[in-house]
Amino acid sequence: MTNTTAPVARSPRIRLGMVGGGRDAFIGAVHRIAARLDDQYELVAGCFSATAEKSLASAADLGVDPKRAYASFAEMAAREARRKDGIQAVAIVTPNHMHAPVALQFLRRGIHVICDKPLTATLPEAKRLAKAAEASGVIFALTHNYTGYPMVRQAAEMVANGDLGDIRLVQVEYAQDWLAEPIEQSGHKQADWRTDPARTGAGGAIGDIGTHAFNLARFVTGLTLDALAADLQSFVPGRRVDDNANILLRFAGGARGMLWCSQVATGLENNLKLRVFGTRSSIEWSQEDPNNLWVGPLNAPRYRLTRNGHGSGHAAARMARVPAGHPEGYLEGFANIYAEAARAILARRDGTALDPAVTFPGLAEGLEGVAFVDACVRSSKRNGAWTALNL
Amino acid sequence: MTNTTAPVARSPRIRLGMVGGGRDAFIGAVHRIAARLDDQYELVAGCFSATAEKSLASAADLGVDPKRAYASFAEMAAREARRKDGIQAVAIVTPNHMHAPVALQFLRRGIHVICDKPLTATLPEAKRLAKAAEASGVIFALTHNYTGYPMVRQAAEMVANGDLGDIRLVQVEYAQDWLAEPIEQSGHKQADWRTDPARTGAGGAIGDIGTHAFNLARFVTGLTLDALAADLQSFVPGRRVDDNANILLRFAGGARGMLWCSQVATGLENNLKLRVFGTRSSIEWSQEDPNNLWVGPLNAPRYRLTRNGHGSGHAAARMARVPAGHPEGYLEGFANIYAEAARAILARRDGTALDPAVTFPGLAEGLEGVAFVDACVRSSKRNGAWTALNL
Amino acid sequence: MTNTTAPVARSPRIRLGMVGGGRDAFIGAVHRIAARLDDQYELVAGCFSATAEKSLASAADLGVDPKRAYASFAEMAAREARRKDGIQAVAIVTPNHMHAPVALQFLRRGIHVICDKPLTATLPEAKRLAKAAEASGVIFALTHNYTGYPMVRQAAEMVANGDLGDIRLVQVEYAQDWLAEPIEQSGHKQADWRTDPARTGAGGAIGDIGTHAFNLARFVTGLTLDALAADLQSFVPGRRVDDNANILLRFAGGARGMLWCSQVATGLENNLKLRVFGTRSSIEWSQEDPNNLWVGPLNAPRYRLTRNGHGSGHAAARMARVPAGHPEGYLEGFANIYAEAARAILARRDGTALDPAVTFPGLAEGLEGVAFVDACVRSSKRNGAWTALNL
Amino acid sequence: MTNTTAPVARSPRIRLGMVGGGRDAFIGAVHRIAARLDDQYELVAGCFSATAEKSLASAADLGVDPKRAYASFAEMAAREARRKDGIQAVAIVTPNHMHAPVALQFLRRGIHVICDKPLTATLPEAKRLAKAAEASGVIFALTHNYTGYPMVRQAAEMVANGDLGDIRLVQVEYAQDWLAEPIEQSGHKQADWRTDPARTGAGGAIGDIGTHAFNLARFVTGLTLDALAADLQSFVPGRRVDDNANILLRFAGGARGMLWCSQVATGLENNLKLRVFGTRSSIEWSQEDPNNLWVGPLNAPRYRLTRNGHGSGHAAARMARVPAGHPEGYLEGFANIYAEAARAILARRDGTALDPAVTFPGLAEGLEGVAFVDACVRSSKRNGAWTALNL
Repeated sequence: MTNTTAPVARSPRIRLGMVGGGRDAFIGAVHRIAARLDDQYELVAGCFSATAEKSLASAADLGVDPKRAYASFAEMAAREARRKDGIQAVAIVTPNHMHAPVALQFLRRGIHVICDKPLTATLPEAKRLAKAAEASGVIFALTHNYTGYPMVRQAAEMVANGDLGDIRLVQVEYAQDWLAEPIEQSGHKQADWRTDPARTGAGGAIGDIGTHAFNLARFVTGLTLDALAADLQSFVPGRRVDDNANILLRFAGGARGMLWCSQVATGLENNLKLRVFGTRSSIEWSQEDPNNLWVGPLNAPRYRLTRNGHGSGHAAARMARVPAGHPEGYLEGFANIYAEAARAILARRDGTALDPAVTFPGLAEGLEGVAFVDACVRSSKRNGAWTALNL
Repeated sequence: MTNTTAPVARSPRIRLGMVGGGRDAFIGAVHRIAARLDDQYELVAGCFSATAEKSLASAADLGVDPKRAYASFAEMAAREARRKDGIQAVAIVTPNHMHAPVALQFLRRGIHVICDKPLTATLPEAKRLAKAAEASGVIFALTHNYTGYPMVRQAAEMVANGDLGDIRLVQVEYAQDWLAEPIEQSGHKQADWRTDPARTGAGGAIGDIGTHAFNLARFVTGLTLDALAADLQSFVPGRRVDDNANILLRFAGGARGMLWCSQVATGLENNLKLRVFGTRSSIEWSQEDPNNLWVGPLNAPRYRLTRNGHGSGHAAARMARVPAGHPEGYLEGFANIYAEAARAILARRDGTALDPAVTFPGLAEGLEGVAFVDACVRSSKRNGAWTALNL
Repeated sequence: MTNTTAPVARSPRIRLGMVGGGRDAFIGAVHRIAARLDDQYELVAGCFSATAEKSLASAADLGVDPKRAYASFAEMAAREARRKDGIQAVAIVTPNHMHAPVALQFLRRGIHVICDKPLTATLPEAKRLAKAAEASGVIFALTHNYTGYPMVRQAAEMVANGDLGDIRLVQVEYAQDWLAEPIEQSGHKQADWRTDPARTGAGGAIGDIGTHAFNLARFVTGLTLDALAADLQSFVPGRRVDDNANILLRFAGGARGMLWCSQVATGLENNLKLRVFGTRSSIEWSQEDPNNLWVGPLNAPRYRLTRNGHGSGHAAARMARVPAGHPEGYLEGFANIYAEAARAILARRDGTALDPAVTFPGLAEGLEGVAFVDACVRSSKRNGAWTALNL
Repeated sequence: MTNTTAPVARSPRIRLGMVGGGRDAFIGAVHRIAARLDDQYELVAGCFSATAEKSLASAADLGVDPKRAYASFAEMAAREARRKDGIQAVAIVTPNHMHAPVALQFLRRGIHVICDKPLTATLPEAKRLAKAAEASGVIFALTHNYTGYPMVRQAAEMVANGDLGDIRLVQVEYAQDWLAEPIEQSGHKQADWRTDPARTGAGGAIGDIGTHAFNLARFVTGLTLDALAADLQSFVPGRRVDDNANILLRFAGGARGMLWCSQVATGLENNLKLRVFGTRSSIEWSQEDPNNLWVGPLNAPRYRLTRNGHGSGHAAARMARVPAGHPEGYLEGFANIYAEAARAILARRDGTALDPAVTFPGLAEGLEGVAFVDACVRSSKRNGAWTALNL
């Protein structure tokens, strides 16, 4: 029972602002806990809503100075940039179509960005944002939070080490059932914007969770995609975006795969699952049982690696807080993305060297995710024709 | 702890012959146990090998009269048909390309046929055989044994009862790893013929196990296929047939699906798994844990039905021999196909009424399976174009 | 996919009789399937009931010659012993109190005995029977069927090989819920005799399933018991025997253990589970998932051995019929006891050498089981005082 | 995907101090994360070590003002009590023997206490502390953190609602393997004090984890203990405290149980598991899979309740932060204890009404836990005689 995580050296907390995340939001609260968990951030400002009263109320809930509760993100960016104690980073937790306009306001003022996924609602917008962000030099983190799970890191490390041999097959799925009925038609706020093409983008399930599945597969395998063949459906009557996607994948080098994402998979909660099969071994990981990684070597018994358990390596240990057998979960995985981003921000701010092990999803992953959605939509419109990402 | 299976009324055992299934074979022994389990058959003759000595040796092993150990299946059919105590049914357990020639010899003499899957190695052959068999009037059972599992029957009953609502999604996979290396090149008998197009047919994994997966999905859902889009691969260098297939499915009525079959899925043994999602509920069944059926209703807790357990219905109970908690397995499921065929054969022979609940795979399923392989091969050659079964 | 079980050399089938196992019985049908599975026995006679009509009816169901359907087991023993083609072995599947009287009739005539557990209803009776059986020289098999499961054999082999190091802890439980309500008061035949001390003996759950749990722990560990401390309960109002037992165990050499058996464990079906912890490794096996054995080495990842899978040894392979991934179950495990007994009976009959690997529970295990029940009852009456077996 | 937890109304954070928890400690870091997670506490002072330098170094790590880093807890209590901005609560994370002396310093000054378990190292000490704490009127929380898991709350709610009927059986176990070897002899800091009777108390495993298991069973069932019969062992040569305990339990009203705790259970990580069986239903919960609660009703299928999932009730929802399918873990459960204590402290401080649903372990549970250890040791010394708690 030893504490295996080295303490992050104490440096003053990063002053953080937030755009979005008001009282009814889901993901804003998650970001705040993630930011708080390792004590590297301090939430000091926010444009929690475009309505001044609501933004103020949220600030009150959160202990944020009312003077720093804004109703306009542009004003927030401008005024915070002028303060001596202004925010050093901003968390963007709005619907997808607002990611780019908000991010641009902050990054052009040198404020680092931690943005929810997908990067943007459209591909041209993603390309513009990526270009602008690169030009600005700010640190840009995209919360593909599932890559923050320790055993996902372990899986990626094993692939990189060649433990699996040459990869032949990738099976990834992300299936939920919360949109199995047309709840967007009866005022469900989360469902409302996620099924509105104007706010969520051209992809429904494929954008909301398919991008996570794709990112997870890419992160673990390191393989690049040659082409995909997508069959998108909108099962629920009246739905304006896809709620299910069945996709075949072809990777550079010859590996093949399947990706299934669904928000109408009755009886499933948040079933994100990845299996990778190589010539020497395979791995299997499931988000609903995240502390275990199953390894299936050729001609030897199947075994289980646990977070911080025997046989688990450095990449996982960096992400773990408590001993094996004490489960960590979604919030810890999310916090790991914040912690990695904090390491990068602090190294930049304090002029210290950045541990080369630090990694987190950013612009490249964001751009690729939006291109993935775009390719799925194009393929499906052409009856599942093989389609490459437009990067 | 009650014995829930009604005894099958005692009638003299069905006299059974076998073609194939000599000393090195795998599936012949399985058929024999399956035939014996419920005491409805008596193995009395066989052409266990085309080599006389080997056929005799197998007969000796099995306690079969040496006079009824044949080296020619045609001779066997002719002579058994003339005997007063000749066989009433024949089990065909040869490589695929021999199914049709053997079956034709017996069925034209009015001998019932129990044939291993797939029906034949080629589609034209399958059509000819189906026609001839129908014309003959014999009972023809095809051992798609997985439909003999009680909880598969339970699943089908639930779908038929409308418990799942309208089916939207079908996810089925059958993945193994025993062909992850080129073992056919070093004399592995089972691998040898299964990777030889002349004996196995145009499909490799898709014929050997993909047909099982497809049949299972069809049996449980009752949905007919509109079209498929298949991406077949031969990962192992030098392999002459596919060893992996990634397939998209479109069913009549709008349901969609994915089918994955692989014999290079490192670390997996015999992972046949079916999930069906409807508007009201879903089911999940895995062959490696066959006594449980998981049910995932919309807006209610997930639950587990067990073989002979509370909440499980009549269709499953018909197939079960021992109380809940006492696992049954592969052999019992296989034996259920034999038992169902026996009920049909005995009803025919004894002139009794056949329980309308009796069901087993036969010519229609066999023909469809071969058409499925054919469509997969055609689709894959056209780069995964949507392709209908040629039935 | 290789057939790993060597065929048992063909020799004429063992002629088998049965006492008990009429139409309403549960375990008789199980014994018959077990006897049939590997084709080593032929059921030719029976006293299926003490009522002549019922015995005849069962014989008709089973295809047994009506002339060899008896209403008196003593008459059956006498007449079968006189026949040239008389039975060579008898399966006893009566309530417990009849085991000894029946067995004595047959073994004194040199007819081998395959007897359901526990050996007898009382300890003095067990001692007398054991003495008589040893004197007779017949082969005596007791169907502690759970030791027939391949992965139980694997576990025992690993302990014997020292893979676990020195054993420290044994945790075994056998919990069901079928007697959670007083069903014996409303005519449930199985419950009726199992809760009647005159027929079942002094122990209820402890005799019916506790003996299985104890035998399993003994078989796998090889440890002998120094003493036990038992707390027996009869939870169901009106019940005349225990329906739950909580027991502490002390083994020779210092290992300790706990044994729980219950027939009122609401929600459990047939949960027999064994865990053994040594200085170097541990094993875990569950009857409801019998094809897997989990191994937990010290300071290394937990792994899974599968029946016929990689890393599984000879002792398990001897007991397996089909490849890894094709589940075997309760009937196959039960059949393995019959197959082992057949090997012993055939070696005796045919004068051939017996494979030293053959093992099956017999008189010693039977005697110990009854002594275990006796010790539990005595300990519990003395408020859980530590009590040794009276052997 | 809705955020089901109502925000705790914003009130200034509780000023928290800590005693213990310096650089090498395990549990101190856990307490700090737990305190931070819901943003109700601010760590402002600490006596992280009795060595001034070490205490200062830890303060630096943690961002605590060096002027408030103490080397003497008595001095800390005295000086903090005099400050206007002094701490309002103290977290005590020292070895067991220091809990009482430290707690007494703070509670007599009206500073609320959050203390790690067990309450004290000895029973007389526990009684004195409980008396003093009650007299002081401070809020006293004991971090039996496992009762903070949402599905443990769900289980307790179901028992309280009568969903299980009358409870008959309680099976609880807490097994680990980290002390399977004598690591305390080679300088392992956590093992060192936990195996030293002077610091850990008379119980080893029974105190460290047995108290958790007992508390969990008590919390969920509400049953009080009549007597226990304990068989304690020290398996590892040279070990001065028990490292395994096998215990029988008798509860008031007739329920029976078994409790096993072990720190030499090779291959297990942190296996805390509770099963409760009533006349109508049963529940099963495992700490390593904490987001699921399995329910086994009599005569109906087994089902799974998930944290925030369908069918889960208010008591669990109060403790959950993210939607079903997004796992929460050990830190969230621990944080729930801190959050409950915060609700009590804030209600006291702000003079607001306390939600009657708030519950957390305190003095009564602590006293009972130490009495449990004491009774186990006494019982074991008397060869497992039935022994009541000395309360």
